Amino acid sequence: MSIKYSGPADAEPGVTEAASNSLPNSRKVYLEGPAQVRVPFREITLSQTHLAGGGTESNAPLLVYDTSGPWGDPQANCDIKTGLPPVRVNFIEDRQDVEEYTGRAVKPEDNGNRTSANTIWSRPAKAAAGLENFPGLTRQPLRAKPGKRVTQLYYARQGIITPEMEYIAIRENLGRQAALNGQPQQRNSLQYQHPGQSFGAAIPAHITPEFVRDEVARGRAIIPANINHPESEPMIIGRNFLVKINANIGNSAVTSSIEEEVEKMRWATKWGADTIMDLSTGKNIHATREWIIRNSPVPVGTVPIYQALEKVNGKAEDLTWEIYRDTLIEQAEQGVDYFTIHAGVRLAYIPLTAGRTTGIVSRGGSIMAKWCLAHHKESFLYTHFREICEIMAAYDISFSLGDGLRPGSIADANDEAQFAELDTLGELTKIAWEYDCQVMVEGPGHVPMHLIKENMDRQLEICQEAPFYTLGPLTTDIAPGYDHITSAIGAAMIGWYGTAMLCYVTPKEHLGLPNKQDVKDGVITYKLAAHAADLAKGHPGAQVRDNALSKARFEFRWEDQFNLSLDPETAHEFHDETLPAEGAKTAHFCSMCGPHFCSMKITQEVRDYANKKGLDEQSALASGMLEKSGEFRDKGSEIYLKSN
Amino acid sequence: MSIKYSGPADAEPGVTEAASNSLPNSRKVYLEGPAQVRVPFREITLSQTHLAGGGTESNAPLLVYDTSGPWGDPQANCDIKTGLPPVRVNFIEDRQDVEEYTGRAVKPEDNGNRTSANTIWSRPAKAAAGLENFPGLTRQPLRAKPGKRVTQLYYARQGIITPEMEYIAIRENLGRQAALNGQPQQRNSLQYQHPGQSFGAAIPAHITPEFVRDEVARGRAIIPANINHPESEPMIIGRNFLVKINANIGNSAVTSSIEEEVEKMRWATKWGADTIMDLSTGKNIHATREWIIRNSPVPVGTVPIYQALEKVNGKAEDLTWEIYRDTLIEQAEQGVDYFTIHAGVRLAYIPLTAGRTTGIVSRGGSIMAKWCLAHHKESFLYTHFREICEIMAAYDISFSLGDGLRPGSIADANDEAQFAELDTLGELTKIAWEYDCQVMVEGPGHVPMHLIKENMDRQLEICQEAPFYTLGPLTTDIAPGYDHITSAIGAAMIGWYGTAMLCYVTPKEHLGLPNKQDVKDGVITYKLAAHAADLAKGHPGAQVRDNALSKARFEFRWEDQFNLSLDPETAHEFHDETLPAEGAKTAHFCSMCGPHFCSMKITQEVRDYANKKGLDEQSALASGMLEKSGEFRDKGSEIYLKSN
Repeated sequence: MSIKYSGPADAEPGVTEAASNSLPNSRKVYLEGPAQVRVPFREITLSQTHLAGGGTESNAPLLVYDTSGPWGDPQANCDIKTGLPPVRVNFIEDRQDVEEYTGRAVKPEDNGNRTSANTIWSRPAKAAAGLENFPGLTRQPLRAKPGKRVTQLYYARQGIITPEMEYIAIRENLGRQAALNGQPQQRNSLQYQHPGQSFGAAIPAHITPEFVRDEVARGRAIIPANINHPESEPMIIGRNFLVKINANIGNSAVTSSIEEEVEKMRWATKWGADTIMDLSTGKNIHATREWIIRNSPVPVGTVPIYQALEKVNGKAEDLTWEIYRDTLIEQAEQGVDYFTIHAGVRLAYIPLTAGRTTGIVSRGGSIMAKWCLAHHKESFLYTHFREICEIMAAYDISFSLGDGLRPGSIADANDEAQFAELDTLGELTKIAWEYDCQVMVEGPGHVPMHLIKENMDRQLEICQEAPFYTLGPLTTDIAPGYDHITSAIGAAMIGWYGTAMLCYVTPKEHLGLPNKQDVKDGVITYKLAAHAADLAKGHPGAQVRDNALSKARFEFRWEDQFNLSLDPETAHEFHDETLPAEGAKTAHFCSMCGPHFCSMKITQEVRDYANKKGLDEQSALASGMLEKSGEFRDKGSEIYLKSN
Repeated sequence: MSIKYSGPADAEPGVTEAASNSLPNSRKVYLEGPAQVRVPFREITLSQTHLAGGGTESNAPLLVYDTSGPWGDPQANCDIKTGLPPVRVNFIEDRQDVEEYTGRAVKPEDNGNRTSANTIWSRPAKAAAGLENFPGLTRQPLRAKPGKRVTQLYYARQGIITPEMEYIAIRENLGRQAALNGQPQQRNSLQYQHPGQSFGAAIPAHITPEFVRDEVARGRAIIPANINHPESEPMIIGRNFLVKINANIGNSAVTSSIEEEVEKMRWATKWGADTIMDLSTGKNIHATREWIIRNSPVPVGTVPIYQALEKVNGKAEDLTWEIYRDTLIEQAEQGVDYFTIHAGVRLAYIPLTAGRTTGIVSRGGSIMAKWCLAHHKESFLYTHFREICEIMAAYDISFSLGDGLRPGSIADANDEAQFAELDTLGELTKIAWEYDCQVMVEGPGHVPMHLIKENMDRQLEICQEAPFYTLGPLTTDIAPGYDHITSAIGAAMIGWYGTAMLCYVTPKEHLGLPNKQDVKDGVITYKLAAHAADLAKGHPGAQVRDNALSKARFEFRWEDQFNLSLDPETAHEFHDETLPAEGAKTAHFCSMCGPHFCSMKITQEVRDYANKKGLDEQSALASGMLEKSGEFRDKGSEIYLKSN
């Protein structure tokens, strides 16, 4: 694979160096591969190390995985009313297996029968107000030609390496690449450890396009990539790749406006969300989704039953397969990349929840439970599952098989209802694979630490290694207001055990709707949990960033420490709260210990001493440091300690 | 054990019901046991459940472990200048094994040679300013009579159950007690699981004073309780008890005032800190510590080498055993309950750190490393360890054997230097036990998830089950500003594996000094991590609070949900951000789903239906719900769904 290293999109030669996006000391760069593949990264430039003996040493810039899309490239000149450039359009068209067609007309009920359809978009939308339709889309929807399969799973099974797979191989190799380019080596020989499980496949030192293809073909990874969302940059969800995170956004009947929602998407992806789910309810669902998808560089997921419920005015028992099916088509044509479908909530399982502390807490699950009980019928999602597969296959929409019976409290974790549904999700996974549909499986929820691993192990076995996508899990119920943390504990652990994507939880979980700060807190918290999982899994490139940051910390390169962190702004601000002076950013001390004492500085002296004497670790003691002790004492006092 | 349930301290009969401390719907109550033992708890009163079929059902008040001391009891009328009442003074005197003596005179260097010794305390203290001495202490210090041992370990080994042990048995039984008093039962039969380790002892369903004694006698738990800190309320640190947390406070050379420090102590214990460590440096160390100890209801720990270093003007190489010894006596007489002593940093281990990414990051460790190298001598802490034991035994100060060579980055985790020191800590544990000294052992630091368990397992084996007391560990280095979270992940896990106390980390870690909000964030984060560990360990009483909160959540008892949480204020505030109206606190919906749809409400309908029909889980489907489906649909529509 030949990779060219290029500057920002459409940049003039010579201008690329000056470009930077909104994160400090960063610029967007692109690695080019075969098949017109051009993969974005954020490059963080580092300052020089001032060596203790005089002189300097440069620190190689660090490339980090970048989910911000063209929005993170100031040279891309994005316009929300135009939408993002369709980076995948050639990939899709070159395969010659799709056709344009006249899509389903937008119906009044798609937007909750809104009355004033042309309200200016930029005016704060109220729950019942109308919303301007997205003006930028001129193309017709695509679908598979008759008799064709257009899913990445289908291609993978045929042995075809798609441009999406090429793209992903470059994207996922990132840390490995940096490791080869002079970054500090890992000291720990981290081995890939799924503790105690028997399904593990090693993460290779170098990800090849063939490895990507093989993982997809086995059903062990998915590439959510609706052919009608060409704006999305290819990414992969599977446990032999970087752990991904999802951020939920979406308006609600009570609050939120479309401006906020589109901005939440850009905001969430700026900080690292790998996918977003639009969970909007109420009016303007269709229009909101259109704005989001056309501007989203990451895959977009939805829960179609939410919109279907709106179409029957919130009456679960009035839902029908026809209304649901129509909603799937509607969203498929818009470009939704994965659907959460709660087809595992079977009639027979519903009574299993009656004795629970918190019953059914999944919205989708409870809608279907209500429908099943009202009609005393098997769920139409289950009985029509093969028809759903046919629709999903025609657009390459991935399944996210919903866990409608997930536990909503510690008391309900790992109970009969939950695992009964999981058995059905395993059955449905196999059916979806018959149709070459890509599948991931959703998981809980609220689970105490000692019961987490059972969730992962069962899912791997029952769903034959289809990627697991979990919400948290929250490891205790007693900290509302801090559930991003109660859940990050469970998320990091289950990520280590093998979960491929973690759905974020914000501090507002259980209490209210997340605002912009909550979205950021949720994303950063889940990025660190996912990264902790990557480290524990032994991902070959993960530790490079830790090492670079720790080296900067040890060498008092404060700005580098901030810039290498997941949230440079907060790190900078926290530092400056105590030591606001600009000089403190180059000072060889910090506010924790003050200017007269610093343990890191002492360590450096230890090291300098050992270096100067040419003593290796083994011989240092044997070679008579006693004689030198006076010299060291004098020198140490001069160099570093000021009289108090 | 006879337990009487009494109202607030010194309350008039009939007044007790009205008393409340600053947390909502809470009051301080005391359970009385033998030997004048009177154990405080916080009682949270809950509202009634409105049953779906009409009528109400009461919810028993919940008792929670309370670390706030008399400060949390509005009837106690505490005065910072008087200090807290010496609740343990009778316990100590009744043993008739201690004597008063004329203590060591306070020397100018104890407070950094401050010049203006009578500056008014309440005026913001500057780093170099003087500080009023604490005016409230009139008693002389106590020490063991010649030939006597006064440690809880000594008593335990003699088969003596002390009042401290009686107190602790009542305190630790709390959740169990509540479980017997009508709280929801646990659905999961949580078993005590130290995954894969061979040292586990079951946590009994009921903690007896004899169990407490036995755990202390085995060295598996400690009761930090200096005879000169009679103000502290007995508590225990051991892995067969509730996981405890420590909050570090302390001024620094750069910033902070004594007012802030005393208030930080009260603040940290209000939110649940089980011990605090005073890590002050700079001027006024002695006076600051006096103010803190006299007002602290929880054990206080210090790192005496910090103050010793101040006495030699920050020149590590000028430290001597005599200066250090004098500092131990000084702090022993003040009442410090445990000392961190970095006696495991041996000369031979120092070169093992030379190749590290972040060298020696422990302050105590680097001070001793510098001393050892400067003199090319074995650490005086190691060579004088038996003399240290004699001092500690005379006051019942517990050892916290410091991990001076703990890793400061992911790259350095579990390396040779770290484990070499641990071997020495195991050796020192045994020596301390010869002197009947109580011992806990400190642990890292920065450790990726897959390397955490090795830390616990090695410590248990090498230190023969002496309690482990860890800082985090942080599971990644890349999130400065969020290290309370990166470390809470590791803390929860290692707590589950068997760590007895978790040292908190605040969001300011690595960046600056924690302010009041940071202290609270750190404490709450660690409380939730410790609680998650208690759940995973299968602590018999832990889940009662989760169950009560989840029940309140499910029943839309919003105020109860807030009040049962670790931080009622934040939970309340977050809820009100979206739905500020008072009516929303009793509304059967929340902002996440809006008034027209609520999954929990649907679940309740499922349950009501099952109940009304008298169908049990097994027969529900078989008994012909089909015929009833029309009725259900009609009823459901009336009860809950409004037309949109």
